[in-house]
Amino acid sequence: MQDKYTRFQKLMEDIHDLGKAAGVLSWDRSAYMPSGGAAARARQSATLARVIHEIETSDEMGELLENLDEWKHSLDPDSDEFGLIRLAQREYTRARATPSDLVSRMSETNGLATMAWQKARAENDFAAFLPHLEKVFALAREYASCFPHVAHPYDALLDRVEQGLTKAEVERIFNEVKGPQSDLLHRIMDSGVDLDDSLLHQKFPREAQLAASLEAAKMLGYDLKRGRLDTVAHPFATSFSVNDVRITTRVYEDFLAPCLFGTLHETGHALYELGVPQRLEGLPTARGASAGVHESQSRLFENLIGRSAAFSHALLPILQKYFPAQLGHVTPDAFFRAVNKVQPSFIRVEADEVSYNLHIIIRFEIEVALLEGRLAVKDLPDAWRAKFQEYLGITPPNDREGVLQDVHWSWGLIGHFQSYALGNIIASQWWSMMAKDLPQDELMRAGNITPIREWLGAHVHQFGRKYTPKDLIQKATGGPIDTGPYLGYLEGKFGEVYGV
Amino acid sequence: MQDKYTRFQKLMEDIHDLGKAAGVLSWDRSAYMPSGGAAARARQSATLARVIHEIETSDEMGELLENLDEWKHSLDPDSDEFGLIRLAQREYTRARATPSDLVSRMSETNGLATMAWQKARAENDFAAFLPHLEKVFALAREYASCFPHVAHPYDALLDRVEQGLTKAEVERIFNEVKGPQSDLLHRIMDSGVDLDDSLLHQKFPREAQLAASLEAAKMLGYDLKRGRLDTVAHPFATSFSVNDVRITTRVYEDFLAPCLFGTLHETGHALYELGVPQRLEGLPTARGASAGVHESQSRLFENLIGRSAAFSHALLPILQKYFPAQLGHVTPDAFFRAVNKVQPSFIRVEADEVSYNLHIIIRFEIEVALLEGRLAVKDLPDAWRAKFQEYLGITPPNDREGVLQDVHWSWGLIGHFQSYALGNIIASQWWSMMAKDLPQDELMRAGNITPIREWLGAHVHQFGRKYTPKDLIQKATGGPIDTGPYLGYLEGKFGEVYGV
Repeated sequence: MQDKYTRFQKLMEDIHDLGKAAGVLSWDRSAYMPSGGAAARARQSATLARVIHEIETSDEMGELLENLDEWKHSLDPDSDEFGLIRLAQREYTRARATPSDLVSRMSETNGLATMAWQKARAENDFAAFLPHLEKVFALAREYASCFPHVAHPYDALLDRVEQGLTKAEVERIFNEVKGPQSDLLHRIMDSGVDLDDSLLHQKFPREAQLAASLEAAKMLGYDLKRGRLDTVAHPFATSFSVNDVRITTRVYEDFLAPCLFGTLHETGHALYELGVPQRLEGLPTARGASAGVHESQSRLFENLIGRSAAFSHALLPILQKYFPAQLGHVTPDAFFRAVNKVQPSFIRVEADEVSYNLHIIIRFEIEVALLEGRLAVKDLPDAWRAKFQEYLGITPPNDREGVLQDVHWSWGLIGHFQSYALGNIIASQWWSMMAKDLPQDELMRAGNITPIREWLGAHVHQFGRKYTPKDLIQKATGGPIDTGPYLGYLEGKFGEVYGV
Repeated sequence: MQDKYTRFQKLMEDIHDLGKAAGVLSWDRSAYMPSGGAAARARQSATLARVIHEIETSDEMGELLENLDEWKHSLDPDSDEFGLIRLAQREYTRARATPSDLVSRMSETNGLATMAWQKARAENDFAAFLPHLEKVFALAREYASCFPHVAHPYDALLDRVEQGLTKAEVERIFNEVKGPQSDLLHRIMDSGVDLDDSLLHQKFPREAQLAASLEAAKMLGYDLKRGRLDTVAHPFATSFSVNDVRITTRVYEDFLAPCLFGTLHETGHALYELGVPQRLEGLPTARGASAGVHESQSRLFENLIGRSAAFSHALLPILQKYFPAQLGHVTPDAFFRAVNKVQPSFIRVEADEVSYNLHIIIRFEIEVALLEGRLAVKDLPDAWRAKFQEYLGITPPNDREGVLQDVHWSWGLIGHFQSYALGNIIASQWWSMMAKDLPQDELMRAGNITPIREWLGAHVHQFGRKYTPKDLIQKATGGPIDTGPYLGYLEGKFGEVYGV
């Protein structure tokens, strides 16, 4: 059986290596590729994806997994081998259930939809995007129908990024936070307090923003021997190895927050991938457990650390070094308040912590209604405006700042947005557990993040993708996803900031 | 048969796409990868190489090529289809003749040798590199022995980069240029003329060098919609698509020539790849014909244009814009003379045009002697010093500036250096043919390079890799590689500059 495992592991290493090669192609496309390279790059990426899919669904893989299944049950469920076989079985089952012609149609449709979306967004023209979006949702339904055992089509899509989680569970979680977050937002809006964030809206030269953000990332533990920072239109983090995890950001010269907090956010993602143990290097288990768990790391570093009162004492001096004229006179408390201004707004990626999840819940409810056929794609802009009015008390003036704002649907990412909200919630679970072991405020105030990173390493990072997200959270916290710590955090922090 | 050709073409497209993906990985390694990524990147590249090799040598490919062979003979030998089948047959035959365990041993040996070389070069320690170099040459001999039909082991290695050319032909060519180049060099050294190149040795800030070099590249026809310029330790050009061909350079802030002429050199390579017709995009024929023909393009743009008296009138104003203090007072004639200073030196990449080929001939003669067993690897430093004294009249003071200077042998590139000299020679063949059609001096003086690029497009670029280098040169010039134009060029240009 060891022979079979060795061969199986070799195939998994190949899948990993080819996937990482695809990652480099994708990073280059976003960061450096000249425009002329687009068509060829799309084809190269598609070829790599096909070769990977061929290995994943090969008869050899099927036979190996069948042979290894019984052996797996003799293994320690915490072993790397068990985790790798589990992951491969899941990927094999999913991939074999999906006809390859559906995969190509989805890939082609997404490519065209993304181009159409870019144009439609720039021109605020939902009608031009509509036929593409209708195809995307039709294909999402067709994809979901490949998994007839699920209780709801959303489950089949959700399972791609949060294995084992269901629409019913997401609904339960969202129902728990929706009321309290709305209530808090209303109390803040009614408080009459209007925080001054003008210090963030000054002239901040590009190169200095990048240097300051990188220095802040280094304080969080990011290391340029194992990473680098580049600028792109839509920031992301990407891992090519447990020793080469790159982050990206974007710069607005008249607004400091996107570059700075964007960098801290991607640093959180990167530290997760960099914290996967070296012995998993080269295997598909050498990455984060799920999109939601990944977001729990990025949001923890961006918000629980980056936007905390305590860390302002460590972060502000870095910024003052690069921007003495703009920020030299600012106090840590003023900085803390400025970066925590709450204001319902149209754009998800610019949302404050109190209203952020409401942006997600709107998308979740819309996706479910679309998948159930209760809503037609053509009626999306109306539904979007109605939901915004209901949850945030504002109505987007146009589709560009409304339903056209995010690229995700063009990419075929239906059943994906929930992970951003789950990340916020899970981050607070880690944070409240960590509070039993570490004096977090004291550490953050001193800019000493190493113990926090090590704690996350021991409870989250070290397991890579060995467990399902559910199992990982159960193992680390002793229970399922729990909204209590998150709601307590929001109420505590923003209750104090706004005196409500 | 059309079905079989379609399937064959699909496999060739896959080989092309995966090869380009490997190219992106390699470019990133040189230009941007953090040091931590090295080990994983080596593995990813090896995995891609193996997947490509598996397709190239697959039974399916063998059967398709057998089926297509007869059909090929019914095709126009100038057709794209004929060229693609010819190329695939050649690659298939070579790849099948090479045992895969030899390929892995070479790959592993080269990886270790490259690391050892970096250290040995830095520490001027040939003894530490010796065991690696012995393995590299032993494997080169073993590789050559896989092709028992060749007349000389060098032929088997040479055929990898110059299909169809033999050691005997290279020898014939080198024997024709060796005497005249040595003689010209001696006359120059004895002339007592010492050109002043101090204008190149001033302080030139990095960013301005890059901007000026890029502007010069644009004047040659390089277009940032289809390319970009980055800095690396060892410059190169690389193609990811006929619409995405990138160049690299390096900067010394106290010496203008390496960045500027390095950029013009790589621009020559890039314009070749960018000149391949769009209809070949995505196929292995969409690239240059051979290493030597490629070098004929880079050296043409670097030297025949870049270092010409006429082009100095167009190039110098660009430089003066970026370096008014350093070069504002310089005349085109003074610039032309400075960049054509002849001085025997130890380092190949810094050699002037008159002595450059002698550097290559030294390496060629040493490689042949090593392959024949007339020279032992351990005696290389002595042989190197003796040859330098014989051909250039100087003896390297140490191995770092002698036998350890180039990375090529560590990479397993035996039978490769000759292409640099062949490139010089072939460049002059194109140039003298072109002289019948175009007023080159007038065009260069005006900075109007488009007609020159279009001429090269029509006679060289448009054919991609459809023909063997021999066939391409025969087709374009009506004969084989001819040293006459090159020797005439050197004698004319340097005879005038030095009055000898």
